[in-house]
Amino acid sequence: MENKWKKKWENPELKLTPQISNTLNIKDVVYLLKRNLPDQDQRPTVHLALGDPSSVPCFRTSPVAEDSLVQAVRSANFNGYPPNFGLSSARRAIADYLSRDLPYRLSAEDVYVTCGCKAALEATLSALARPGANILLPRPGFPRYESRAAFCNLEVRHFNLLPENGWEVDLDAVEALADENTVGMVIINPGNPCSSVFTYQHLKNIAETARKLMIPVISDEVYGHLVYGENPFVPMGVFGSIVPVITLGSISKRWMVPGWRLGWLVTTDPTGLFRKVGVVDSIKKQLIQSSYPVTFIQGAIPNIIEKTPADFFSRTIHLLKQASELCFSRIDEIPCLTCPYKPQGCLFVMVKLNVSQMEDISDDMDFCLKLAKEECVITLPGANVGLKNWLRITFATELSFLEDGLERIRVFCQRHAKIQ
Amino acid sequence: MENKWKKKWENPELKLTPQISNTLNIKDVVYLLKRNLPDQDQRPTVHLALGDPSSVPCFRTSPVAEDSLVQAVRSANFNGYPPNFGLSSARRAIADYLSRDLPYRLSAEDVYVTCGCKAALEATLSALARPGANILLPRPGFPRYESRAAFCNLEVRHFNLLPENGWEVDLDAVEALADENTVGMVIINPGNPCSSVFTYQHLKNIAETARKLMIPVISDEVYGHLVYGENPFVPMGVFGSIVPVITLGSISKRWMVPGWRLGWLVTTDPTGLFRKVGVVDSIKKQLIQSSYPVTFIQGAIPNIIEKTPADFFSRTIHLLKQASELCFSRIDEIPCLTCPYKPQGCLFVMVKLNVSQMEDISDDMDFCLKLAKEECVITLPGANVGLKNWLRITFATELSFLEDGLERIRVFCQRHAKIQ
Repeated sequence: MENKWKKKWENPELKLTPQISNTLNIKDVVYLLKRNLPDQDQRPTVHLALGDPSSVPCFRTSPVAEDSLVQAVRSANFNGYPPNFGLSSARRAIADYLSRDLPYRLSAEDVYVTCGCKAALEATLSALARPGANILLPRPGFPRYESRAAFCNLEVRHFNLLPENGWEVDLDAVEALADENTVGMVIINPGNPCSSVFTYQHLKNIAETARKLMIPVISDEVYGHLVYGENPFVPMGVFGSIVPVITLGSISKRWMVPGWRLGWLVTTDPTGLFRKVGVVDSIKKQLIQSSYPVTFIQGAIPNIIEKTPADFFSRTIHLLKQASELCFSRIDEIPCLTCPYKPQGCLFVMVKLNVSQMEDISDDMDFCLKLAKEECVITLPGANVGLKNWLRITFATELSFLEDGLERIRVFCQRHAKIQ
Repeated sequence: MENKWKKKWENPELKLTPQISNTLNIKDVVYLLKRNLPDQDQRPTVHLALGDPSSVPCFRTSPVAEDSLVQAVRSANFNGYPPNFGLSSARRAIADYLSRDLPYRLSAEDVYVTCGCKAALEATLSALARPGANILLPRPGFPRYESRAAFCNLEVRHFNLLPENGWEVDLDAVEALADENTVGMVIINPGNPCSSVFTYQHLKNIAETARKLMIPVISDEVYGHLVYGENPFVPMGVFGSIVPVITLGSISKRWMVPGWRLGWLVTTDPTGLFRKVGVVDSIKKQLIQSSYPVTFIQGAIPNIIEKTPADFFSRTIHLLKQASELCFSRIDEIPCLTCPYKPQGCLFVMVKLNVSQMEDISDDMDFCLKLAKEECVITLPGANVGLKNWLRITFATELSFLEDGLERIRVFCQRHAKIQ
């Protein structure tokens, strides 16, 4: 039987559609690194690769969020299927929440509730995809954009973020890359992985460039409000009257609950351009094909948003600021590593690895594999987010743990540095 | 600006990919019917279209399920991202639960936790899709299969379920429809919309036919264990040694919590055929692209499955049996309607509409629209599930409500019947 099946299923006529990207996602790389951890080491593993501090006690979510969820479960009002695009109370609450920072009010109909920001980005890329189209993505960036673009046959063109300019978008490159088949450009602000926070003026320049190219800006603001530097967080939607904006967000990061899978896709389009050219219909069709976010979590959203006390957010910001400063100053003391930019938001720092100064490290992946093996520290190779021979390190963990991890990185670098 | 954008976005080169089916999904039809409800009618609307009794007090889920969920939220152990394919504790619990009814034990690795049964069916169809391929679907059936097949460019071929044979599969038709590009056949057991429960022997015949055609059976068992007639529920996986089976299921129906979005895709493949011909890898790649199920609901799954008392299930079965019998006997007394089969499982009854005996009803959709307008009763046109001039009516609601709805249907049919 087996051979007959093999013959049938391995028939080239029946081969899989080439929908799947070969880019490793971040979880896959972390899995590879974990397999390189030593069997015998008394020390705890220090995880500095993933931006998910939800299991760290000091970053536990607000009791208000937990209470709101429990109340929604206990009410038994939210056990049924949710309506398409979300409960209207949740859509309304998210619209009000985002409107606080905008020069106009979003309506509930501008908001589509999604299974985390992931589903929002996937629906967006699929809605914009069409034969021959291309999309402009930042480098470094977040690899899920690349894998989703491959999945929906959307060509990717990368523009650089410039470390010497605080990781701002290279807008000349954007103009040079775009053509009549470009369907959008993506920004991530606050920046993952660079932890930059774009200024009002830079965002306005992005909007004006996009307007010139007649493409919407897809603004990934999943780290929205997680800022602790000089620049305040300005949502891209502020410039919706210059160019249509699709904002992607979620409660995952600000509330530290990525496992709750509650995100949103919001169209900021005060001139109604998206509606007129069919983009809104296309997004709706994609979302109907996508999974529904859990009903009772949607039911809890109005309370979560309205009642979480300000001190929960300010405490998180304080902790992140402290951790980012510790991380930045310690890395400055480590041989073979440099950090060109002090984080202003988000949970990471991008660190340049000076491979030529190291004895037996061939590249960033090699560095991370050996660091895992020798020091039980997990960091992310920059290649995985688009920058070879850099590292993405998260500082969103307990300070003592972070200090321990950075010290092990220092010892590791010292051991592997070329003798001058 | 608008005209320039229109020109660009309406360029045929940039037209949308034809991924989206035009089949209305069930929610869309119900929405259309609701718009036909009268503005002024003192009577409450009776909803008999959707299979979601979770908001009906007598069908409220078990307190054990709610408690398990609350405990998982309060633990704060499940706020982070879940691993790909699900928490191992959840996969293990689901494997054990399903193994109770199988001649062998499933391993946790055979189970993929999904956002409801919807995500499981979507991943399955996409994993099997490839250029030129076709899939065999039952008629009547569940329209999400058709819309997902259209979405992933998988050709659909329908085989009939035979009302005169207790809605069994027309296996001769299956053999006639299949060719070398057929990648699977779908069954829904217990049956949606027919409420049939396939016998052991019929399932074995299905397995043997599929083996002959070298295609897997995709067995949608989302209504698994919701049976109250002569035939016991037998999972298709029992015949996994005859032919590989992909089982789709969830807690949505048996626990009456479709809004919790917790389902599974299970490969029953004791001979390892799926793994060898690449189907398992393809399913995994699809699932990584799909949304993750909420972590704390996964965390609650072992308790929900192990601790829900038997009397919760027996009470549900008792209520459904009572309601199905009431519904079946009342419909028997209504002119112009006939019901060829007494429901044995699931939540619906398929009712034949004798249009020729009616004065001014052109078809099932016309019937449902007028019934909504004149009697404030919502039922589903059979065309929406593949059988024109039938109706799908759910009896899963309060008995008094059901009686009221059926009486209004009787009055409506009497009023619209031709005078003999």
